[in-house]
Amino acid sequence: MNNKDTIHMSINEFKENGYKVIDWIADYYENIESYPVLSTIKPGELRKSLPKNPPKDGENFNNILTDMDDKIIPGVTHWQSPNFFAYFPCNATGPAILGDLLSSGLGIQGMLWASSPACTELESHVLDWLVDMLHLPEKFKSDSFGGGVIQDTASSATLCALIAAREKISNGKINESGFDNSIRVYTSMEAHSSIEKAVKIAGIGSKNIRLIEVDQDFAMNPIKLREAINKDIKNRKIPAFVCATIGTTSSSAIDPLNEIGEICNEFGIWLHVDAAMAGSASICPEYRFIHDGIDYADSYCFNPHKFLLTNFDCSCLYVSDREALIKSLTINPEYLKTEVSQSDAVFDYRDWQVPLGRRFRALKLWSVIRYYGINGIQSHIRGHIKSAKFLSDLITEDNRFEVMAPTVLNLVCFRYRESNQFNKLLLNELNKSGELYLVHTKLNNKYTIRFSIGQTNTTKDHVLNAWKFILKKTEELERTMVK
Amino acid sequence: MNNKDTIHMSINEFKENGYKVIDWIADYYENIESYPVLSTIKPGELRKSLPKNPPKDGENFNNILTDMDDKIIPGVTHWQSPNFFAYFPCNATGPAILGDLLSSGLGIQGMLWASSPACTELESHVLDWLVDMLHLPEKFKSDSFGGGVIQDTASSATLCALIAAREKISNGKINESGFDNSIRVYTSMEAHSSIEKAVKIAGIGSKNIRLIEVDQDFAMNPIKLREAINKDIKNRKIPAFVCATIGTTSSSAIDPLNEIGEICNEFGIWLHVDAAMAGSASICPEYRFIHDGIDYADSYCFNPHKFLLTNFDCSCLYVSDREALIKSLTINPEYLKTEVSQSDAVFDYRDWQVPLGRRFRALKLWSVIRYYGINGIQSHIRGHIKSAKFLSDLITEDNRFEVMAPTVLNLVCFRYRESNQFNKLLLNELNKSGELYLVHTKLNNKYTIRFSIGQTNTTKDHVLNAWKFILKKTEELERTMVK
Repeated sequence: MNNKDTIHMSINEFKENGYKVIDWIADYYENIESYPVLSTIKPGELRKSLPKNPPKDGENFNNILTDMDDKIIPGVTHWQSPNFFAYFPCNATGPAILGDLLSSGLGIQGMLWASSPACTELESHVLDWLVDMLHLPEKFKSDSFGGGVIQDTASSATLCALIAAREKISNGKINESGFDNSIRVYTSMEAHSSIEKAVKIAGIGSKNIRLIEVDQDFAMNPIKLREAINKDIKNRKIPAFVCATIGTTSSSAIDPLNEIGEICNEFGIWLHVDAAMAGSASICPEYRFIHDGIDYADSYCFNPHKFLLTNFDCSCLYVSDREALIKSLTINPEYLKTEVSQSDAVFDYRDWQVPLGRRFRALKLWSVIRYYGINGIQSHIRGHIKSAKFLSDLITEDNRFEVMAPTVLNLVCFRYRESNQFNKLLLNELNKSGELYLVHTKLNNKYTIRFSIGQTNTTKDHVLNAWKFILKKTEELERTMVK
Repeated sequence: MNNKDTIHMSINEFKENGYKVIDWIADYYENIESYPVLSTIKPGELRKSLPKNPPKDGENFNNILTDMDDKIIPGVTHWQSPNFFAYFPCNATGPAILGDLLSSGLGIQGMLWASSPACTELESHVLDWLVDMLHLPEKFKSDSFGGGVIQDTASSATLCALIAAREKISNGKINESGFDNSIRVYTSMEAHSSIEKAVKIAGIGSKNIRLIEVDQDFAMNPIKLREAINKDIKNRKIPAFVCATIGTTSSSAIDPLNEIGEICNEFGIWLHVDAAMAGSASICPEYRFIHDGIDYADSYCFNPHKFLLTNFDCSCLYVSDREALIKSLTINPEYLKTEVSQSDAVFDYRDWQVPLGRRFRALKLWSVIRYYGINGIQSHIRGHIKSAKFLSDLITEDNRFEVMAPTVLNLVCFRYRESNQFNKLLLNELNKSGELYLVHTKLNNKYTIRFSIGQTNTTKDHVLNAWKFILKKTEELERTMVK
């Protein structure tokens, strides 16, 4: 963008269009509750409405905005609707959107400290802030032997932690010579599918994960973990990595870190803690119990893009031994050598992640923390957890339903005490209505509806209205079933 | 963001602050040439200026903008300055910034088709457009057995292609059982470091890459490739993956795809083509020769965030056999199952990448293609390549300098015909001045300065002025050296 007569958008044109986009977003949030939460388009429907060929000549930017309304919006499932209760939240906020816009505007690439020092230093600084905000161990701070880094998602964070663990236990031999097929990885049966994905990518092989049984609350059973480790050692395998989950996807179960940590410590196994969803709750002192035993962790991940008001993507990975991580991911070709990098005075974050390049993602996180302050974020998180307990109580009071797992934080798992088929039909009717969006899971092999509360603008009223709507649809379905 | 009395940014406040951020970005581009291109801050300098603790109470958003000017800007290396000639370009443009802003505003997460159909369909559509725009093989289109997907970077794209190749050659056994240490990977000595990084992450082991010798133009020597493959087969190893480079990082060398492709075909080896930087040039018919032999490729990657006017991150990966890719990366837990996914009617892009979640990155690419049209992009790319040839000619005319590699596209590699030390000092003086930013490489073991032309607003005049400045600094240095 410049002010000369070129093919590029002029600075004035950028301002004009920029204001329009800001207005478009403002209008979107103004009207968001009028759209069906789950998009109703059929496969291929959007593509059919688009020109088969790219334009030869440039178009006016206004055309994009017109098509946003006419073509894109019908194909959007509205994650930012306060009636979105599916999956996990992916919360966007004003300060995060604008922080991200600043990053896009600057257009810098922070692969090395030198390639934009501000990108690296702000990131380290804000991630150190978060160690204090979440009461995480000091060993995760950048002035210790550890440190934090922003990844795109918890999947990538898990992969990086796994690679570091793999290298540490093999003294770098796997990096050099490849696998000997003896590494073993442990996580609970309720852990996120990204653990298996990471194990596959890292060449360990999905057969070599042990999915440890869970207790009645869907948390990892440490006795079973110890048994699995002992069995593998007996078979001359090398237990290398345990992934504990704080807030499982299906039911928000909290694995017992103290017991798991003691076992990892005893056997010299890397303990990774995946708190992608739940970790943010630890900003409130009353929810810090979820991290009891976190001192045992070698690495830890939580996603501000889930529950800490920061736009996707923003996943924070911490390690207690940054050398292990860096050694496993570093490459240093001539064209990336800088004097300061070779002096150890700085972090080059390219060695902390899979990609080489990186956006200035710390800006949005910084913007959120400053705009809300600790008090603001605490009050937001408390509100959502209270709404979840409120809903859980409402469900418990109705004998037709059962709550399927403890409502620890912001996720409520429930089902109609009937066939899986009834619940499946109910969920389908609810989502088809466009009034809200929920997804299912299976708990104890029963079809269970997950009600996840976390979108920025969701209030207790949205939750109450959703519950009333669920009751209405349930009753309609009860009548149909009776016929 | 909403209009109620909450802790969140109200819609009006968002508009007000949004306009300010747009203005801030406009001012940034207005003044960008007044900043030193390479940041001059010392390690730790930014952090020292930031409060040690996060704020308890929220702050006004204006504080962020004030700190952007006072604290962040001095720590920025200005990738969007037209005098940035370092590394590769990372070009930002008005339509891309605004497309990205639309994506941040919508705040959707496109892991599955159903989780926002528009995100998946627009991506497939625009990536099909690009097949035509770059004259890539039809097998990369979504209506064939292949298809395209947006990744963050070429590093991740290479990793995904490698995993798919690994699984295809082992019939899925590595995914399941882990490595048996017999897989071999081939790329040239001039290939990007991300190939080695991917090989390490995938557990293949860096010892198991064969770095094939290059010819006088730094392109892979296919005779040496064949020799290496034959040797490995003799030793009962399994040649699985060749990565050819179109436009190497050091010198923009073009590997001979026809010869390499024939060898891959003969031995049943997966051919990945990394055209991260150079691929975009193929939008101009006169540069399509760089892709001669591309029909042999099993996968292909180029980065619109380098040379196609689209903000980082945006790397396009194409595969000819999407099943191979999907099989190697799929995981399907209960909470991610949707009816439409199980019907094969749609793509679920989570299975085409390392992370689970994904942003709506197609919006910025769509916005760029429509705003510029094919003609606009062609004229932009032609301008930069012409500037590179212009510079290359100027250098050739001056006997004190030598051009170190053919100037095929937008990269000029040169050195002062003197000691490495002289060139190192020269580069240091140039970068210290703040007038421009260049980085070095080694070619034939000689310290070489890379002049990479690609920032959106770089014109022939910027290149000419930079060259005059290089001459001035050279002469100053010559005088010092004589003393």
